[in-house]
Amino acid sequence: MSTIADVAARAGVAKATASRALSGTGYVAEATRERVRRAAEELSYVAHSSATSLATGRTRAVGVVMPSVARWYFAELLAGIQHALIENGLDLVLYSAVEGSSDRARMLDHALSRRRFDGLIAVCIQPAAHELERLAAMGLPLVTVGPVEPGLTGRGGMSMVSIDDAAAARVVTEHLIDLGHEDIAFVGGIPDTVRSGLGDEIRAEGYRSAMTAAGLAERVRVVRSASTMPDAFVAAADLLGDRRRRPTAIVGVCDEAAVGAIIAARRLGIAVPSELSVIGIDDHGFAEMFALTTIRQSPRAQGADAVRLLRMRLESPEARAERVIAPATLVVRSSTAAPRS
Amino acid sequence: MSTIADVAARAGVAKATASRALSGTGYVAEATRERVRRAAEELSYVAHSSATSLATGRTRAVGVVMPSVARWYFAELLAGIQHALIENGLDLVLYSAVEGSSDRARMLDHALSRRRFDGLIAVCIQPAAHELERLAAMGLPLVTVGPVEPGLTGRGGMSMVSIDDAAAARVVTEHLIDLGHEDIAFVGGIPDTVRSGLGDEIRAEGYRSAMTAAGLAERVRVVRSASTMPDAFVAAADLLGDRRRRPTAIVGVCDEAAVGAIIAARRLGIAVPSELSVIGIDDHGFAEMFALTTIRQSPRAQGADAVRLLRMRLESPEARAERVIAPATLVVRSSTAAPRS
Repeated sequence: MSTIADVAARAGVAKATASRALSGTGYVAEATRERVRRAAEELSYVAHSSATSLATGRTRAVGVVMPSVARWYFAELLAGIQHALIENGLDLVLYSAVEGSSDRARMLDHALSRRRFDGLIAVCIQPAAHELERLAAMGLPLVTVGPVEPGLTGRGGMSMVSIDDAAAARVVTEHLIDLGHEDIAFVGGIPDTVRSGLGDEIRAEGYRSAMTAAGLAERVRVVRSASTMPDAFVAAADLLGDRRRRPTAIVGVCDEAAVGAIIAARRLGIAVPSELSVIGIDDHGFAEMFALTTIRQSPRAQGADAVRLLRMRLESPEARAERVIAPATLVVRSSTAAPRS
Repeated sequence: MSTIADVAARAGVAKATASRALSGTGYVAEATRERVRRAAEELSYVAHSSATSLATGRTRAVGVVMPSVARWYFAELLAGIQHALIENGLDLVLYSAVEGSSDRARMLDHALSRRRFDGLIAVCIQPAAHELERLAAMGLPLVTVGPVEPGLTGRGGMSMVSIDDAAAARVVTEHLIDLGHEDIAFVGGIPDTVRSGLGDEIRAEGYRSAMTAAGLAERVRVVRSASTMPDAFVAAADLLGDRRRRPTAIVGVCDEAAVGAIIAARRLGIAVPSELSVIGIDDHGFAEMFALTTIRQSPRAQGADAVRLLRMRLESPEARAERVIAPATLVVRSSTAAPRS
């Protein structure tokens, strides 16, 4: 196998120059860098990442922790993070485990004890106090994506990316109120194995505040279900089954819940939107197919934002932590209409 | 920050012993290992993964390449791989990029040039010849998951995990034939940005061979669409719209395609299963909700299998490459019935 000395000889430069050219650290003229790069390629030279890392103090990898990869939001976000990292020549070390599981308990300690990455992106995972202390002690910057416990937001040094969940829920509820609905139920929000329930609770609160502001506080109805399509399907079927108590509109805590409600309505022969309006939050990949009115957010763009914030901190440790409120826009399709009078 | 010498002093052992105890290499009595482990914990000792890796020649990480994480199969598989790796104290370095993209072209070269992992799991990605050569030259074992180009299966040293896609497609088609259907269309199979089309082509072939074996070769109808729910929805709506040419049953190339067909049927007022039978392959998370008859496969279990095969090769380089045919079983729900006579 070729060594750095072989590469240097072939390129006609000193070993130290070849090393600087390949690691990208320190000054090397562009033409020289190109010559060294070509020599390395011709010799199939492989730098050992561990050696590079010991020399530079950098691993050129980013850790990502998330409770799941098997739901739309997480998968899209991960795709956005991955793309941004590849563009910047950084590797992605993934730790996904459900909150409260034994995998989750081991995950960060394990990762930190190996010093495997230069910085961490935590998605909808609430780092424990001792984990935050360890990150800080090791000088590793942290970016969170998604809702964060109020107690954590005060911590210095933590950058954050999320939509304004409360505002999103208020906007969808107000859209239904503006159409003339008064009997509006909210479906979802039981913490399940994947969603901590924190973002869902904030969304339920947004629904309540919009109802209260419109003088509909007494009509508030939160139908609890896990925020998955099958669970919301069952909860909505229960809710819609009793004709006397049937609402004229449903706010799904997320699109999965809203689509579950639409499927339940179809099963019961209830026409959407003429007999029932349904609105969601997320603009899930299936929203278009169900003609769902919803709030559009882009987890892919949020993933790119998270990488950008992390790189700022990696490149200059004195850079301040930032908070990005990601865009979220109402997209009106045909699952919402004025109630039948 | 504590050093290995501090840990050794606290545990009352030699530095080399402490090092062996923490790296898990070489003989150390269990009680000693435990004492060292506790000392390390009390001192918040952090081993630098790069130093450990240079010393042992192992990174204790596994690379995973896949075209996407944003679809059910890939996300479930990744969850299975992740869980098995955490259990074995191995880290997961993720490279996901769509086949044919510039990210995909850079991905493996980049990963290999860093020697970031001890072995690789490639999911529905066809490694190029030069990539295979490089892996072999570096002595890194490879496990593929999902269908593999016939030209690649002959390569020694490559372990493989997949279901028998052709058999799965034959079984679902025969289920419809046994119910009395003769006019059976197959929906899906256009390669899209994520699916290479290889597995889909094998499934289409399985459908054709079952039809031919039943004397229905002239009834073979492959309706091409990308294998996503929205695309299959559009293709099925076209197919079902013309009452004179409407089949009595549809085989979806996968559950996403089958569910797209069910949604299209509902939109057109065609009752499933009394007017149209629909069957899929996969047992996707939504299959239950749509009462879909399908072939059940478990990508999570396949992920665990892939890690098991890789560990065998890592632990003894002379271990032979293995091929695992993952289980796939017919699950009959209520989307299939005898045709109306």
